[in-house]
Amino acid sequence: MEKAFKNHLKSEFPFLCQGKLLLAVSGGVDSVVLAHLCKLAKLNFSIAHCNFNLRDAESDSDEEFVLDLADRLDVEVFIENFDTKAYAEDEKISIQMAARELRYHWFEELSVALKYDYVLTAHHANDNLETFLINLVRGTGLEGFTGIKAVNNTVIRPLLTFSRKEIEAYAELHKIKWREDSSNASNKYLRNKIRHDVVPVLEELNPQLLNGFANTQAHLNDSLNLVEDYIGLIYPEIVSKTMYGYNLKIDFLKKLPNTKAVLYELLKTFGFSEWEDVYQLLDAQSGKIVYSSTHRLIKDRDVLILAENEPDRKMQEYFIEEGENILMLPMGRFTISEVDEISKTAPNCVFLNAEKLTFPLVLRKWSNGDVFYPFGMKGKKKLSDFFNDNKLSLPEKESTWILCSGNEIVWIVNRRADNRFAITDPSQKILKITYTV
Amino acid sequence: MEKAFKNHLKSEFPFLCQGKLLLAVSGGVDSVVLAHLCKLAKLNFSIAHCNFNLRDAESDSDEEFVLDLADRLDVEVFIENFDTKAYAEDEKISIQMAARELRYHWFEELSVALKYDYVLTAHHANDNLETFLINLVRGTGLEGFTGIKAVNNTVIRPLLTFSRKEIEAYAELHKIKWREDSSNASNKYLRNKIRHDVVPVLEELNPQLLNGFANTQAHLNDSLNLVEDYIGLIYPEIVSKTMYGYNLKIDFLKKLPNTKAVLYELLKTFGFSEWEDVYQLLDAQSGKIVYSSTHRLIKDRDVLILAENEPDRKMQEYFIEEGENILMLPMGRFTISEVDEISKTAPNCVFLNAEKLTFPLVLRKWSNGDVFYPFGMKGKKKLSDFFNDNKLSLPEKESTWILCSGNEIVWIVNRRADNRFAITDPSQKILKITYTV
Repeated sequence: MEKAFKNHLKSEFPFLCQGKLLLAVSGGVDSVVLAHLCKLAKLNFSIAHCNFNLRDAESDSDEEFVLDLADRLDVEVFIENFDTKAYAEDEKISIQMAARELRYHWFEELSVALKYDYVLTAHHANDNLETFLINLVRGTGLEGFTGIKAVNNTVIRPLLTFSRKEIEAYAELHKIKWREDSSNASNKYLRNKIRHDVVPVLEELNPQLLNGFANTQAHLNDSLNLVEDYIGLIYPEIVSKTMYGYNLKIDFLKKLPNTKAVLYELLKTFGFSEWEDVYQLLDAQSGKIVYSSTHRLIKDRDVLILAENEPDRKMQEYFIEEGENILMLPMGRFTISEVDEISKTAPNCVFLNAEKLTFPLVLRKWSNGDVFYPFGMKGKKKLSDFFNDNKLSLPEKESTWILCSGNEIVWIVNRRADNRFAITDPSQKILKITYTV
Repeated sequence: MEKAFKNHLKSEFPFLCQGKLLLAVSGGVDSVVLAHLCKLAKLNFSIAHCNFNLRDAESDSDEEFVLDLADRLDVEVFIENFDTKAYAEDEKISIQMAARELRYHWFEELSVALKYDYVLTAHHANDNLETFLINLVRGTGLEGFTGIKAVNNTVIRPLLTFSRKEIEAYAELHKIKWREDSSNASNKYLRNKIRHDVVPVLEELNPQLLNGFANTQAHLNDSLNLVEDYIGLIYPEIVSKTMYGYNLKIDFLKKLPNTKAVLYELLKTFGFSEWEDVYQLLDAQSGKIVYSSTHRLIKDRDVLILAENEPDRKMQEYFIEEGENILMLPMGRFTISEVDEISKTAPNCVFLNAEKLTFPLVLRKWSNGDVFYPFGMKGKKKLSDFFNDNKLSLPEKESTWILCSGNEIVWIVNRRADNRFAITDPSQKILKITYTV
């Protein structure tokens, strides 16, 4: 196996021979064998071990074992202790996910601080097959079948083409000691059943199972790449970036031979779960919305608008005190000044009769009963009607700011002033308010 | 299950209720239960049973059982006997494949002759999962994971959403008898191991396995559809039809992010197995060829030419006897006539000095030592040089016909006449030969 490993290094990861490497070692047979092989291949590496403190004395014995291993191999070693349970509770994630996040985050820190080029992990061919079968049991899509990647940015898995049997046989042959790994947290039962009760039957049916499976996964990866290339090709015709997120063109989507599948690919990272509702939006009435925990998809005439969920409106209220000149707010800057006369107007600027204003002025989002007296029109108008007349989409309405004096609307910012505060006589005291993003 | 079946019919296959149906019944629990369910749903169906004669008396008992079933259900029944082993040997295919071909071919014949609208088969959810796992064991790509289709042209599988357990429980509850199916030919051992040793473990890990798996396969089908849509989208830019097969544009292929995967998709139905050789053709010297059992892929400057393998050249020889006027040949028609003078020449027509010809003239493909005296040129030329000067691709060279008089070339059909047989004096006896496709 030593020779096979060196050849594999040379052909697939020649860059590792020049690099400064950080090797993740749990103490299990896979990572201990990898450490020995790296030493034999004369790679420039240090060892990193995470103590997740999930198995009391056992965790500490693992730590001691790794310290001793580093000593015998004569390589530098880093140990970090984590309170994994607390982290999992804080972040509301599984123990397994917590361990994963803590581990990769620490590797990242170490790599940056001490200039490691690559992190090596000891995942092997059986890990890939087991994960495939676990995902089959749980239900998945193509991505769940494509497996752990041998090269994923700076994380490298040089044992991915070797089977667990090969690794264990090598350890036995060279009398390499390791610690039986009883971790794997929540996944343990499922993975062990797959490992001990399913994989051996499949291997009995085809002794070359793992080789064949590597080809199978290479094919699946090819297919996944082609799906991504396809989405990349049609993306610019369907999707356009907006101030609020993205617009998806319904007519183009509908012309595709597999509209639903494309819509799924476009939206899969936005947390939607009610996919039938999402698909039905294509033919729904304007205004219909489907929510995920973070996003909304809004049918708006000929587009689907993808936007983040609206933040609580009541929380968004800002005040302009009398005499204030410049106000920096999250949505932009308001400049307030007294002027002698009305200059050329622009949508982002309003001239107000200062005598009619009650301070502090209030900047807020619209609410249902809002009514104003549009400048240049007779009489009043519901704000909702004004929005609809101007064909504002829901995110446009939501992002519109209203400047108020007491309960009265002074200015629909960037859109329309109110008659009641307009300058009717040059002798009035004129306040100019300008909004810039 | 009866109610679930009726609902499933109504929502997924409403067209079956109006159709004239042919139900494939082996005598196993799946097809027998399907026959009962179709009767209860008042569908208009007949039964078709194939006796493959693979299990002697057992096969005949199955046949009797199905005859009896049809009698009890009071529906028409067709029985056909096949010599499956002989067919498999003749066609050089597996027994299983032979049974499949014979079965579907007979169903097709019956459907056409007796105007059946649809053929129903009793495949169920477990068949799909078992096939998935069999393909996993053997090694496959995305297509091998996408499963049996519920609707495949006129073949309909209305039980595909039901599990074997449900079907067996229904049979038991209603005391429906069936014949234990000991067929499945070469696949039997593999399928039985999967059925009895693997699937139960997976179902223990997730009792909702089959439901989840149906979703998984729906996702995989979506992905496969997107791959096909992508290939369909880029196909016209890469592939063009030629007289000899297809040309694939190398520069466009190389610009794609996943060239190899696209090349695989484009060529997968042409029997190639040495894919690395195929991929290397993109950068190979002009003239390099990779073969499959039926096709060749030829690097020719900026294209890959996909063509059928060349038929044996020696077999392709035709004779033009003296006095013959019209000759119909596989590649077209040759018209021979005596004329008084040379008219306007066209590439598909040649005027020869009849006195110099030795009959029968021979039409043949080119061979290596061929030399001729090109009309309008001084001296002789190797035919291979003539081809190269004219930048003929390999299939173009191969498809070119040579008209000979004895050992001498008279005409490179449609390309160039030979000086030696040219008319030099109006008094000569002129033979006009015209070739039309």
